[in-house]
Amino acid sequence: MQSIKNYIEENKPRFLEELFALLRFPSVSADPAYKNDVLATADFVAQKLRDAGAQNVEVCPTSGYPIVYGEKIINNNLPTVLVYGHYDVQPADPLELWHTPPFEPTVRDGKIYARGACDDKGQFYMHVKAFEAMMHTDNLPCNIKFMIEGEEEVGSDNLGKFVAANKERLAADVVLISDTSMISMETPSLETGLRGLSYMEVEVTGPNRDLHSGVYGGAVANPATILCQMIASLHDENNHITIPGFYDGVVELTEEERKDLNSAPFDLEEYKKDLEIEEVWGENGYSTLERTGTRPTLEVNGIWGGYTGAGAKTVLPSKAFAKISMRLVPGQDWEKISELFTEHFVSIAPKSVKVKVTKHHGGAAYVTPTDSPAFQAAYQAIEESFGKAPVPTRGGGSIPIVALFEEELGIKTVLMGFGLDSDNLHSPNEKYDIFNYYKGIETIPLFFKHFAELENK
Amino acid sequence: MQSIKNYIEENKPRFLEELFALLRFPSVSADPAYKNDVLATADFVAQKLRDAGAQNVEVCPTSGYPIVYGEKIINNNLPTVLVYGHYDVQPADPLELWHTPPFEPTVRDGKIYARGACDDKGQFYMHVKAFEAMMHTDNLPCNIKFMIEGEEEVGSDNLGKFVAANKERLAADVVLISDTSMISMETPSLETGLRGLSYMEVEVTGPNRDLHSGVYGGAVANPATILCQMIASLHDENNHITIPGFYDGVVELTEEERKDLNSAPFDLEEYKKDLEIEEVWGENGYSTLERTGTRPTLEVNGIWGGYTGAGAKTVLPSKAFAKISMRLVPGQDWEKISELFTEHFVSIAPKSVKVKVTKHHGGAAYVTPTDSPAFQAAYQAIEESFGKAPVPTRGGGSIPIVALFEEELGIKTVLMGFGLDSDNLHSPNEKYDIFNYYKGIETIPLFFKHFAELENK
Repeated sequence: MQSIKNYIEENKPRFLEELFALLRFPSVSADPAYKNDVLATADFVAQKLRDAGAQNVEVCPTSGYPIVYGEKIINNNLPTVLVYGHYDVQPADPLELWHTPPFEPTVRDGKIYARGACDDKGQFYMHVKAFEAMMHTDNLPCNIKFMIEGEEEVGSDNLGKFVAANKERLAADVVLISDTSMISMETPSLETGLRGLSYMEVEVTGPNRDLHSGVYGGAVANPATILCQMIASLHDENNHITIPGFYDGVVELTEEERKDLNSAPFDLEEYKKDLEIEEVWGENGYSTLERTGTRPTLEVNGIWGGYTGAGAKTVLPSKAFAKISMRLVPGQDWEKISELFTEHFVSIAPKSVKVKVTKHHGGAAYVTPTDSPAFQAAYQAIEESFGKAPVPTRGGGSIPIVALFEEELGIKTVLMGFGLDSDNLHSPNEKYDIFNYYKGIETIPLFFKHFAELENK
Repeated sequence: MQSIKNYIEENKPRFLEELFALLRFPSVSADPAYKNDVLATADFVAQKLRDAGAQNVEVCPTSGYPIVYGEKIINNNLPTVLVYGHYDVQPADPLELWHTPPFEPTVRDGKIYARGACDDKGQFYMHVKAFEAMMHTDNLPCNIKFMIEGEEEVGSDNLGKFVAANKERLAADVVLISDTSMISMETPSLETGLRGLSYMEVEVTGPNRDLHSGVYGGAVANPATILCQMIASLHDENNHITIPGFYDGVVELTEEERKDLNSAPFDLEEYKKDLEIEEVWGENGYSTLERTGTRPTLEVNGIWGGYTGAGAKTVLPSKAFAKISMRLVPGQDWEKISELFTEHFVSIAPKSVKVKVTKHHGGAAYVTPTDSPAFQAAYQAIEESFGKAPVPTRGGGSIPIVALFEEELGIKTVLMGFGLDSDNLHSPNEKYDIFNYYKGIETIPLFFKHFAELENK
């Protein structure tokens, strides 16, 4: 492994430059305005895979954004690792809150600031560079396949079809993903599960046009007021979600699982201080780690209606809207939840308004078996690289396609992320520590080494 | 009066052209981007007053937008009418809902479509043209003063100071305003009261930055969710407003007043059909006419927070905002109500968020004495011009400065409006019927005639 270490050491400056080039693409998949940038990003990724030594590299078209595929098959008898990542990023707005331009990566005290720095460009590109290091030093111990998509931030609508249509090509022994976070670099951790997601949009219509709030106010239902009342009713006084059937099938943790989970290092005061909040919030009877890691939630991601400009406009709006998403846990079927939400939301609407509910996207929750060779390999790789055994954690985020891989390809996923919760994913000033970037590149080859050994036992 | 009639008849096309020119100024007082247009509108109005025969015309500077003053004193022993109006208009957005450009007046089946067509350019300009007709035919029966301001749509912040500082100059026997509506041209009506207003803006802050709704969702208070819960709590199950002390001092109508009010021609089915709503909404125990005319209300005029762009963004927003205004009735002090709202809104905020409340503007409610010579003069003028006695009505809108005139100048106001509730005030496609515009110009001189007679009795 020394030769790999040396190669990485010698090439660190270039590895960073290449990441910067990747981060300069504004590959925002949610906004059609960036279409050409997203497409250009796919071509860039494909070229970098070729440069690193991948074969059969292809930018595979879909009805949405393309999926970049590449592979290196050294021996069919050796195990195969399928690396998944995504080259698309979240929208950067609100732009005015960025200290430096989101698509001009800037380094401040050892951190790379840019949209996508951590989620997921900085993390998936570690694999491309680790692969390059293994190739150039003749140290690739198993076969490797790359599948880097461009629609993760908008629900991976076309990945499912692609996977189903390419089972042979994608055949592997494990899926390896770096798109999650660790507790810290001093306390490395390893995700054992992810939450599912159901993302909805609602539209409440009152009168057929904006009205003068003096002439009509008090006599015609105000859709903004009604929307607020409907959203307020979705949580009860214990912050339980009130949608009938929502919790059906939710797997409750055993006392021991709860004990393990809560034994993870976590400083509530630090947490509140970092967010500048006086009190945390959430479902009664659960700790903060349980609330984010093991419980389903419902969040308003956006709300708008009426006059939102400068000054005052005495209008009774015709329409009000909200984007509402639910995080799901094992035992919840995201499509069923989407239906339950729709039925319930329509059912609680008073006759004085009309309601329209639209489904954006979603995915199932996932739990990794910690006794698998792949999980053990990741565990050992982190232990060796950090000099400290990782803490098993349950992440609150979602990578909807993880469940899909198991369904379609029949293989498990290992979530070996190197980000931090404080990396401002989906927020202004997203960052990724240069230290974490390099640490990931150094740790990945160790995973391959241990995985090859354990699989061949 | 025949000579006035003839003069108006001969000049109708020009009167319409001049109104179009006035409507082409985008005098949006709420949005600083239109500053120069608003100022240009003031100059235009001043010039038209001079052309009509007014003296001592002045564009009076204030710390905001100027007030246009002009007068014609024919004899100090004659009564004096102070005409008030405003040359500023509401913002035109949402622009995409206009069928023709808001600042390019367009006539469709006898109606002038433009922002400000009715509120208030079309209505105050009737007075300028009626004045011109009386002047050119030597039929002005009393003294007249004009005070046309440019900040009515943003709270008339500087009018109060101006009036207080110009009591001599503004001395009059009555204030005459055309900035309200009639039931219809077949059923002319006359306003006997207006509601007061208190316009607030609230800001709810959760975490100090937008967060990933997966990583933090369910564990940190979402300001959009909390704002919805707070707004929802402002009405109880009977749609009574829950702010402690809100109804203190509200004057309840007598059974007879209620009977009179509800005897006004009103077709609930037509009302619902026009707005395309299945059910009306409002305070239990009151009719629609009572709800808008005699009861205080609370409306969300705008709400926003989080991601409102295309597609999906899984963000837990840092902030959520709302513009909330209350319509007030006689017995409610608008400044006290603003304080009560602020205290209450802050008091119901959970510790997990921070709340900021800002006061936009407001004004007191007003009721006209129906036995005054001025009200009687308006009543007779309408009866003569429409061939039908007007129905007394209570309007839901607010002209905060009406109460101020009484306070500062010690004179009553007559609200002789010629608009219609269906004129889309503050909405896209605001309109004003050419018929109403001409009808107003014909009716105003009759008011002057009757007022001069009644005052001199």
